[in-house]
Amino acid sequence: MDIIDGGVTAPRGFNAGGTHCGIIKQLRPDLALVVSEEPCPTFIGLTRNRFKAAPVTLLIDRPPPCVRAIVINSGSANALTGDRGYADAEEMAQRTGDALNIDPEQVVVASTGVIGRFLPMDQVRAGIDDAAGNLGNGREYAAKAAQAIMTTDTFSKEAACRLRLADGTDVSIGGMAKGVGMIAPDMKALHATTISVITTDAVLTPAFVTKWQDMLDGSFNMVSVDGDQSTNDTSLLMANGVAGSGCADEDPAFVEGLNWVMCSLARMLAKDGEGATKLIELKIVGAVDVVQARAAARTIVSSCLVKSAVFGADPNYGRLFMALGNSGAEFNKSALGLIMGDDAWTGQVIKGGVPLQDEGMIKLLEQAMHSSLINMVLDLGVGNAEAKAWGCDLTYEYVRINAEYTT
Amino acid sequence: MDIIDGGVTAPRGFNAGGTHCGIIKQLRPDLALVVSEEPCPTFIGLTRNRFKAAPVTLLIDRPPPCVRAIVINSGSANALTGDRGYADAEEMAQRTGDALNIDPEQVVVASTGVIGRFLPMDQVRAGIDDAAGNLGNGREYAAKAAQAIMTTDTFSKEAACRLRLADGTDVSIGGMAKGVGMIAPDMKALHATTISVITTDAVLTPAFVTKWQDMLDGSFNMVSVDGDQSTNDTSLLMANGVAGSGCADEDPAFVEGLNWVMCSLARMLAKDGEGATKLIELKIVGAVDVVQARAAARTIVSSCLVKSAVFGADPNYGRLFMALGNSGAEFNKSALGLIMGDDAWTGQVIKGGVPLQDEGMIKLLEQAMHSSLINMVLDLGVGNAEAKAWGCDLTYEYVRINAEYTT
Repeated sequence: MDIIDGGVTAPRGFNAGGTHCGIIKQLRPDLALVVSEEPCPTFIGLTRNRFKAAPVTLLIDRPPPCVRAIVINSGSANALTGDRGYADAEEMAQRTGDALNIDPEQVVVASTGVIGRFLPMDQVRAGIDDAAGNLGNGREYAAKAAQAIMTTDTFSKEAACRLRLADGTDVSIGGMAKGVGMIAPDMKALHATTISVITTDAVLTPAFVTKWQDMLDGSFNMVSVDGDQSTNDTSLLMANGVAGSGCADEDPAFVEGLNWVMCSLARMLAKDGEGATKLIELKIVGAVDVVQARAAARTIVSSCLVKSAVFGADPNYGRLFMALGNSGAEFNKSALGLIMGDDAWTGQVIKGGVPLQDEGMIKLLEQAMHSSLINMVLDLGVGNAEAKAWGCDLTYEYVRINAEYTT
Repeated sequence: MDIIDGGVTAPRGFNAGGTHCGIIKQLRPDLALVVSEEPCPTFIGLTRNRFKAAPVTLLIDRPPPCVRAIVINSGSANALTGDRGYADAEEMAQRTGDALNIDPEQVVVASTGVIGRFLPMDQVRAGIDDAAGNLGNGREYAAKAAQAIMTTDTFSKEAACRLRLADGTDVSIGGMAKGVGMIAPDMKALHATTISVITTDAVLTPAFVTKWQDMLDGSFNMVSVDGDQSTNDTSLLMANGVAGSGCADEDPAFVEGLNWVMCSLARMLAKDGEGATKLIELKIVGAVDVVQARAAARTIVSSCLVKSAVFGADPNYGRLFMALGNSGAEFNKSALGLIMGDDAWTGQVIKGGVPLQDEGMIKLLEQAMHSSLINMVLDLGVGNAEAKAWGCDLTYEYVRINAEYTT
């Protein structure tokens, strides 16, 4: 697998674009289009929040048999907008279909932004027409689409790779994603506001959905910024098959590549969490099963107290165990182990369920806690399952951003 | 029911005291004793966090048939302390029994403070002896006990009332509690770090446990400061029966009085939440049942995004619906209603599931959001059940306190 500089247009047969139509006040792109030259089998993950935004409800009501395009706006979530919001989402699909001269039922709509505001449809209509007229497959087109879906993101998030399948075909995988608040996704295949779009020219069959759900659970669904699952979370994997390969469902290189793209984007979401100064990478080992390992990892990186301690470079490791105890995961209290540090140094803090009161090590740990990457490995001591979660610290800036979001 | 100035010594037959023994550095009380002159039937709620502190584990291993005394220290949670911590908790019970000349099996031990530090037992021993030698039933003794259990609390929390039972007996109920971080209790009767001790001289039978659990679920268990359930949450109701009344289990005045004491203390916990500048009182109405009403209320007041918006006086009501959608509670999307305001003014913000875009009302709401009490009534539109939860805003000060807690 070769990591390449690129985004959703890295695979053949995909065009993208972004435009500023005026949903947001700032002069930056707020409407993105990703279009496949061929109808694609598409895997769609949507939020499990019961209060779903209008475009999410529309997707559930009318799951597209195959997808040609996705239109995404930032600035408004189109949630808490009743029948009018639903009609607006329908119109976005229709308008995009008309502008691209494709079936509107093959258009996916996604929105992100403030909840409880109607979309300014005059601007949205003009934006769709403009974006559709200015599509391209160059690096800059993918970049503009990635910028157009940002809300409080401080950088746009893209990843791409190229790889050779076992049958000798070269395929590419590209993706873009946005965060970075209301982030604790729990997306389920067509039943999952982080928004992400992954494209590939490999051939996939509908049976790939099971593997893809597991990859979703191990990547985007393992990111937590604030523990608040959005009304709008949507993840798309579009496989247009133009590489002409054999089926890549079980191809190890493809699975590795797709996993890398998804985990890379997931890690970026946590790194760019609202107000974050530190990325937390937590690995759970020794769990009974993967479900419990994931539950423990997610609960710990979601804890306000763990996140505040990381912000303060305070090695208050006791809080990890408090959070573990609330996760529902089983553990052996007298076999618990904890290793903490940064990317350069780690030290064993807890062994056999008790703190190793080593003053020298604690001094080194206190230094490591000032790094921008905090590494933790927590051993539950009851099995062999593992999971990784990504989180970030809870900072003054997080509070400021979210205290001032709409006003 | 008459509200009176008092705490755990308001009912007859209870003595209390507090002392500074040196577990914490600051010169304030850090060890409390509450002692009944008679062995009491006692109702004990403990944390459901699976990672339990040593004193909680001890209580589960050896539930006291009846209780004479509770000893509580602040400064260290005695959690993540292995066998040594367990032995320390046992020794605290033994020492308290010896000092008071009572059976150590009738002594309850509770701890609150930093997780992962061993108790300084020399200080604890001296503290128990000192507190036991300086007990009293005056107002100041209850107050000192309430001070001794504080951690990051900014004020001590006490409440008391006097009432007449249906059989004509006058009884009193008094209580003390501490918060104010790691607060999202979910205490279950002998299976519930807020620590609270409620005393009464009324007569209760063991059958009262069912009603008491429901009162616990509707009071302390409806407080959320940070969504992090502690390893040490403990709530005690000690009924020494010295008023010589008939059984008060079903007495409406007693139930009303006890509920008032518990809800008053619960409300104080939220008001004094770490770093809080605003108390949030949220009432859910129109829910299918009480369990769902409580789940919705708790999830909403626990949301970092809701809490940040309240801090910023930002009427970002959309976030309440995001949180509602994550609570698991059923609602009718097109019948949702929301009333928001402060203690002086409230306005209808959402009706029939859509925002009432009334600019004048929004202006008034923006003013009300600057008050120290934010009132919300959310109608789920599917039934008749109700619940109330208490929370607080998420502030810079919360982050500062928890970034600097141990260091």
